[in-house]
Amino acid sequence: MTHPQLPHDPDKFHEECGLFGVFNHPDAAELTALGLHALQHRGQEATGMVTHNGTDFHAHRAIGLVGDTLNQPPVIAQLKGTMAIGHNRYATTGDSSLRNVQPIYADFDFGGFALAHNGNLTNALAVRTALTKSGALFHTSSDTESIIQLMARAQGSADQRLAAALRQLEGAYSLVCLSATQLFAVRDPYGVRPLVLGELHGAPIVASETCALDIIGATFVRDVAPGELLVIDATGIHSSRPFDAAPSKFCIFEYVYFARPDSTLEGHPVYAVRKAIGRELAREAPVEADVVCPIPDSGVPAALGFAAASGLPFELGIIRNHYVGRTFIEPTDQIRHLGVKLKHNANSGIIKGKRVVLVDDSIVRGTTSRKIVDMVRGAGAASVHMRISSPPTTHSCYYGIDTPEQSQLLAHTHNLQQMSDFIGVDSLAFVSLDGLYRALGQVQRDNAAPQYCDACFSGDYAIALTDKAIASEPASRLKVFSSHAGR
Amino acid sequence: MTHPQLPHDPDKFHEECGLFGVFNHPDAAELTALGLHALQHRGQEATGMVTHNGTDFHAHRAIGLVGDTLNQPPVIAQLKGTMAIGHNRYATTGDSSLRNVQPIYADFDFGGFALAHNGNLTNALAVRTALTKSGALFHTSSDTESIIQLMARAQGSADQRLAAALRQLEGAYSLVCLSATQLFAVRDPYGVRPLVLGELHGAPIVASETCALDIIGATFVRDVAPGELLVIDATGIHSSRPFDAAPSKFCIFEYVYFARPDSTLEGHPVYAVRKAIGRELAREAPVEADVVCPIPDSGVPAALGFAAASGLPFELGIIRNHYVGRTFIEPTDQIRHLGVKLKHNANSGIIKGKRVVLVDDSIVRGTTSRKIVDMVRGAGAASVHMRISSPPTTHSCYYGIDTPEQSQLLAHTHNLQQMSDFIGVDSLAFVSLDGLYRALGQVQRDNAAPQYCDACFSGDYAIALTDKAIASEPASRLKVFSSHAGR
Amino acid sequence: MTHPQLPHDPDKFHEECGLFGVFNHPDAAELTALGLHALQHRGQEATGMVTHNGTDFHAHRAIGLVGDTLNQPPVIAQLKGTMAIGHNRYATTGDSSLRNVQPIYADFDFGGFALAHNGNLTNALAVRTALTKSGALFHTSSDTESIIQLMARAQGSADQRLAAALRQLEGAYSLVCLSATQLFAVRDPYGVRPLVLGELHGAPIVASETCALDIIGATFVRDVAPGELLVIDATGIHSSRPFDAAPSKFCIFEYVYFARPDSTLEGHPVYAVRKAIGRELAREAPVEADVVCPIPDSGVPAALGFAAASGLPFELGIIRNHYVGRTFIEPTDQIRHLGVKLKHNANSGIIKGKRVVLVDDSIVRGTTSRKIVDMVRGAGAASVHMRISSPPTTHSCYYGIDTPEQSQLLAHTHNLQQMSDFIGVDSLAFVSLDGLYRALGQVQRDNAAPQYCDACFSGDYAIALTDKAIASEPASRLKVFSSHAGR
Amino acid sequence: MTHPQLPHDPDKFHEECGLFGVFNHPDAAELTALGLHALQHRGQEATGMVTHNGTDFHAHRAIGLVGDTLNQPPVIAQLKGTMAIGHNRYATTGDSSLRNVQPIYADFDFGGFALAHNGNLTNALAVRTALTKSGALFHTSSDTESIIQLMARAQGSADQRLAAALRQLEGAYSLVCLSATQLFAVRDPYGVRPLVLGELHGAPIVASETCALDIIGATFVRDVAPGELLVIDATGIHSSRPFDAAPSKFCIFEYVYFARPDSTLEGHPVYAVRKAIGRELAREAPVEADVVCPIPDSGVPAALGFAAASGLPFELGIIRNHYVGRTFIEPTDQIRHLGVKLKHNANSGIIKGKRVVLVDDSIVRGTTSRKIVDMVRGAGAASVHMRISSPPTTHSCYYGIDTPEQSQLLAHTHNLQQMSDFIGVDSLAFVSLDGLYRALGQVQRDNAAPQYCDACFSGDYAIALTDKAIASEPASRLKVFSSHAGR
Repeated sequence: MTHPQLPHDPDKFHEECGLFGVFNHPDAAELTALGLHALQHRGQEATGMVTHNGTDFHAHRAIGLVGDTLNQPPVIAQLKGTMAIGHNRYATTGDSSLRNVQPIYADFDFGGFALAHNGNLTNALAVRTALTKSGALFHTSSDTESIIQLMARAQGSADQRLAAALRQLEGAYSLVCLSATQLFAVRDPYGVRPLVLGELHGAPIVASETCALDIIGATFVRDVAPGELLVIDATGIHSSRPFDAAPSKFCIFEYVYFARPDSTLEGHPVYAVRKAIGRELAREAPVEADVVCPIPDSGVPAALGFAAASGLPFELGIIRNHYVGRTFIEPTDQIRHLGVKLKHNANSGIIKGKRVVLVDDSIVRGTTSRKIVDMVRGAGAASVHMRISSPPTTHSCYYGIDTPEQSQLLAHTHNLQQMSDFIGVDSLAFVSLDGLYRALGQVQRDNAAPQYCDACFSGDYAIALTDKAIASEPASRLKVFSSHAGR
Repeated sequence: MTHPQLPHDPDKFHEECGLFGVFNHPDAAELTALGLHALQHRGQEATGMVTHNGTDFHAHRAIGLVGDTLNQPPVIAQLKGTMAIGHNRYATTGDSSLRNVQPIYADFDFGGFALAHNGNLTNALAVRTALTKSGALFHTSSDTESIIQLMARAQGSADQRLAAALRQLEGAYSLVCLSATQLFAVRDPYGVRPLVLGELHGAPIVASETCALDIIGATFVRDVAPGELLVIDATGIHSSRPFDAAPSKFCIFEYVYFARPDSTLEGHPVYAVRKAIGRELAREAPVEADVVCPIPDSGVPAALGFAAASGLPFELGIIRNHYVGRTFIEPTDQIRHLGVKLKHNANSGIIKGKRVVLVDDSIVRGTTSRKIVDMVRGAGAASVHMRISSPPTTHSCYYGIDTPEQSQLLAHTHNLQQMSDFIGVDSLAFVSLDGLYRALGQVQRDNAAPQYCDACFSGDYAIALTDKAIASEPASRLKVFSSHAGR
Repeated sequence: MTHPQLPHDPDKFHEECGLFGVFNHPDAAELTALGLHALQHRGQEATGMVTHNGTDFHAHRAIGLVGDTLNQPPVIAQLKGTMAIGHNRYATTGDSSLRNVQPIYADFDFGGFALAHNGNLTNALAVRTALTKSGALFHTSSDTESIIQLMARAQGSADQRLAAALRQLEGAYSLVCLSATQLFAVRDPYGVRPLVLGELHGAPIVASETCALDIIGATFVRDVAPGELLVIDATGIHSSRPFDAAPSKFCIFEYVYFARPDSTLEGHPVYAVRKAIGRELAREAPVEADVVCPIPDSGVPAALGFAAASGLPFELGIIRNHYVGRTFIEPTDQIRHLGVKLKHNANSGIIKGKRVVLVDDSIVRGTTSRKIVDMVRGAGAASVHMRISSPPTTHSCYYGIDTPEQSQLLAHTHNLQQMSDFIGVDSLAFVSLDGLYRALGQVQRDNAAPQYCDACFSGDYAIALTDKAIASEPASRLKVFSSHAGR
Repeated sequence: MTHPQLPHDPDKFHEECGLFGVFNHPDAAELTALGLHALQHRGQEATGMVTHNGTDFHAHRAIGLVGDTLNQPPVIAQLKGTMAIGHNRYATTGDSSLRNVQPIYADFDFGGFALAHNGNLTNALAVRTALTKSGALFHTSSDTESIIQLMARAQGSADQRLAAALRQLEGAYSLVCLSATQLFAVRDPYGVRPLVLGELHGAPIVASETCALDIIGATFVRDVAPGELLVIDATGIHSSRPFDAAPSKFCIFEYVYFARPDSTLEGHPVYAVRKAIGRELAREAPVEADVVCPIPDSGVPAALGFAAASGLPFELGIIRNHYVGRTFIEPTDQIRHLGVKLKHNANSGIIKGKRVVLVDDSIVRGTTSRKIVDMVRGAGAASVHMRISSPPTTHSCYYGIDTPEQSQLLAHTHNLQQMSDFIGVDSLAFVSLDGLYRALGQVQRDNAAPQYCDACFSGDYAIALTDKAIASEPASRLKVFSSHAGR
């Protein structure tokens, strides 16, 4: 099975970043490119790497996929050294965003320091405003720069400064950082975003998901713990807990959709969780039908679970066109009405005359679901039933996931029947919140203290949303910024 | 389900071309770009289009995918007119091949003429040699140019010249051509390569496969018949049979692997044929096992058929990394031994401790199969059984498929046991030739006059291989040809 | 002094091509790039090179300047071998013209053959029409391809075929050609365009002008004679005269403007000729003035001659902005009226209050002259007198120079007083035709049999203009042809 | 006459920057592009512009020439607004330097602010070190960023902050700056680098030289005075003197070489000064010779002055090849010994058998002079005499000119006879310091308080060289920084 976010689907939530780091391996840059490649589903818009070779830092940042940009021989060749960190980013397109591509690099008194961030800081704007008033110059519009600016005003060693900076910040963050002698890995106290520790022939590796360990043949050691700071240097791996304790709030949507199915996060294999959700869904919302078809590719494991639990046959009733590239232009309006099927095609031999269950992972705006249902009906389905392997997404995420404004969320503005009507199905069902927790081995959701962050389904935001209250001032008056690097 | 040839897999046969044409539609160029996009699996290296707007021809040729090259607003904008033909090509990489990208265009006495070819001519070199001796100047190294050169020396109208040229040529060809007033579609007398006729709101469409009709919402009309020449102009669609009759020899490998699963060719839905092959395979070569896993993505339908017939559960035991791009560099030798898993990852939760049946469509060199088996064993499989949904590929193809030299084919040099040992499985089985024909609704293969071209399995070459006997002289002494189109 | 054709000045005639060839030198490609660089003034739009390394030909063609395209390390590296020919072209811009960039290459029975042409064939269209009727396929819209097509239908060795082809063609041509074993150099019987033979440490060199010998430190041997064919191979340099004899008609405008001032052509140093013209001009058209200023850069030698003969001081009263690049966009209309001085600036300290003599080489449309005069008056000149170092250009050139339609030539539509009024000067004078011949050492022009081709001044066209009578049919119906060579 | 710094000549000093600004004109961006184009000789490596359109700032920065980068329609179109500042930079090559391209932009409390700098700050490193210690993060390695960082920590309005910052800095600077409502122009108290005020139809213009006013037809108003700060806004032009008074120390080398000959600086027309230097030189160091030849192009005015004063004829004995581009590769070592003449060619008809006086503006390393002398001798000169229109350059510049280390200066390590021997001339003479001052209308140099900055000739550094004493620590440990802006 494969991951579906390429090309960018406006009807999905999007993970914002993937992280990778390696310490003390002769092929540090190449391993990092491979790791970022395995994490490409966590950010397809831009990618960057910083290495250190004992004397100097070397960096490359690019708009584009890892395989098109970082993982090119001349680029790898200049990324010298045995230590490296890298970052994939989902970001707004365009040349101007290049200055926001991570890792961020800065020169401090103690030397150079590079930092890559997965997550989102919820008081970064407040911090930025205060720092600017006291003479700090920000050079990006990214929340991540606040970490660096706070470090510049802190004292002590790199890890002391990093911890001091993070203690002033709120939000979700997994970070990998690099100094001239140390690799750092840290997760926020709630552990919202994943980060794992691995090992390759003695070289420590950190990565957002285990699939990035698999691609290079590294061994999984353990998850970095919520609130843990790892400092990796020539003397070993040093763990500390520089933050106040907090309840674990791992993002439950990582299991539903973001993570790769072959990753294992916090002890749960993602593929198995998704199949289990499908089975829960079959039990909670059974339907008399002839065939179960996944919306490719993300719906496949849940559809297999649904088929197994319901006894209905599993078939590929929708074929995805995998050559859709990032730059594929949408058809013009005048021919769009022809019913152009750019991304999916109905496999009519499977669908014609059948009662079809479609299984998808989530509904965001509902527009894609509507098109697919229309296509399946056009291919002759007798009836169409949609089953969704997550609860209705009624709230936006502020912890590192790109989500539409709440007003754009179909489940915020429509009840179940209205949603069913909007996408045009004969029946529609979502797995329940409890069903989702059951698929993760819980008896049910602990509504007083939920075991995961499920704010997008429940509205229970565990971490303060300080910046949300601030009038959203534009960070910069520089609207267009382009550059031309010459021939 | 999706198609697997991107990135180029050296361990698969490769279809060489996809064709599309449209007559009398205001969005001819955009429709052709969409059609070629749906046919991207038939050629990912280069693409081209020629249109006519009533006064002039307009052309664009490019190295790269349709979505990255043709289907860009400035390109579409310059491809003016209501008539268009287009071509996808599998070809050797590099700038130098640009002159071989189709459609080929030439100015004749009667006006301009563009031609796109899927297939391979088996006496093109002999014809070329004779023409060159009599003063013809060839400008490409392509077999297709022979058609154009013979037309230049023929008399009469465009269709008379085209038929006259083709009568002097042997081999497999489906062609779409464009003059200032007519669209042409023709298949060789044996009908080796597919070509279908469709219709969109009154505008005739021709395409290699029905999936190219589906993407634009066009209706399938019928297959172009073997040996049929269609001339489409303002007065309608005119059919003729300008060649001597020959037995139908449609390429059976189109069903096994080349065609998209959602296409229907010569009356058979491809997905259904593949599932049927899987069922035949389960009957011919059953195995005691715990789980059936496809080699993604091409093995999925046959694996579903195998699972259904065997009663074993179907699981995604191997995950494909879909972000592998055309330009992704292979790891260096020094880290390749780390076991880098660039294209696939084992989903160990599914595989560990299980007796696994892997289903794939074919084995060419065996190198990829070997790597995958090794990976599956590394993930803890108790045993690994490989089932292949085609007979052993013992012979090369000369009719338009890119195949290795016969000496490179594993099945040519190894018997079944040797192959099993080479790829490292506990058991290996291929579907029988008769089983393959049964999946297509035949009782068995008619060995005296096989109903399909199955030369790659049987060595029965129905069309003369004239050029094979000629010492393979290099067509040109111009080895490097590069160009630079300015900033 | 420098050459002025960059950027393209629409108010000048333009030489169409520069040629270079070298035989048997280990640095053939690099020498050819240097030679073409020295000949850049003869064609700035495109450049190409073909080399042979004993087994294969290697080619590169580009839109752009030599230094930006050919003379780059990766390009030079692939142009292997000890034999090379190269070509600079003045041509219409745009990607589509890439197929017209020379050298042209073709595969013949006897092997590969490359050809580069300076000049213009005056019956190429007639020949092309006849060849097309008999089955030839032309692949460029260039007159030069007729040579190659005629060679394909001729018999014998490369030089026999070349001579046979040229005997069927009329017009002006200097050619350098390359086969696998021979370098060829040939001038048409009238010797309209230049071609010189040089030698570098034993390696024969051919080039359009001597300045291309100077740049590589080669020795000038002699001019290739009108009507002479040189075949250079391992056995030496073989001269023959395969054409009927004709009177010498070297282009007199080469001395006026086209050639570089440091070249020597047909025994005359160009700089000295231009100074001599300036002296003639001072004698023929003296004027009471305070200062002589050249229009930079082409007017400098004639202005020095004028100043010396008249006794007036020579000053740089007009400064040329040398950073004007090929891609510099013209100001928009709304600010053009501000009097933007993109190419020249008046040096007002020199001009203010002075009676100024401006010396230029020619007037084509008069628009540039008019602007400059206006600028000089704006800088405070008391009076402005224009002196032109060529006779009025009243006729178009058909022998290889890019000239406007005759109706666009100021001197065709205006008499002297009208021209003077148009450009806004107090007085205007051109050197006489006899004065021009005197500067070249003749007593006067032999009006019965002029010693040079001066058709642009006199209308005496020595070579038949066959194609001029043919209705100018478009050579191709392919209007737009673009390509994309991938990343 | 033209300016010589393209291509980069390693044997010349190089001006580091050109400035332009315009307030309240509808074509602000286009005018700025034209102005920068006229100032291209002051910096050919990179260029940038910032505009403001009443609501937002718009910026473009590029490596390359103005005509190739800024002055392109899509770039101009995005640089919206009626206020603009621009900058040309001479800088180290390479993509990594893009972050140093000016104007620098920053967001302050009071809004956005952009700044462009010509000159060099001599205590920037000391200031930077102190700021970094107190928590400032520098994002470029440029001395100019110190101004911005000091402004961030100052209080008050933009002009108050700018003045406060500059009072803490030493060195040479002419600045143009832009806020949302104001255009700023300022020169350091010594007035080392030029800056002029002009006017175009009521719109104030500031520029490094008057030639940038001429190109757009603007009127020269006056020089910005040393130590003057102009604030230009909707209410008019406001002048203040926020610094302690200092003696005027305008850079005398601007007259010798940097400025364009058609500019007038501090009341002196540059062309006239250069001719006057040539006359002084002829008087101070006469020679019996036959011809005076400039080293093109910068030596031309002095050569004309020398010829006039000496009575010797002026001729173009050396021809410059103007198509040498920035990217032209140097010949390989193996053919360099052939005597490749990439940049200049001797015009042997002028030189052969003659006693030649070569006039150049300066000698830095002497390597280019040596090659030219060798070439002139090779062309047959009877004797070669070099006359230099500046005194020996014995000291490096720290005020904004790119000069070699002092140890690389020929005049620092060689006496006159040794220099003469090194470049291989029969005689060598430099104009005296007093002669140089005489050409500027002084009786002689006031050795107690020189009227100009002539430190490169005299070693009299008027402004403190604080940073020179600091061990030159690398500003950043980030050695390689590359980026890829996607397709």
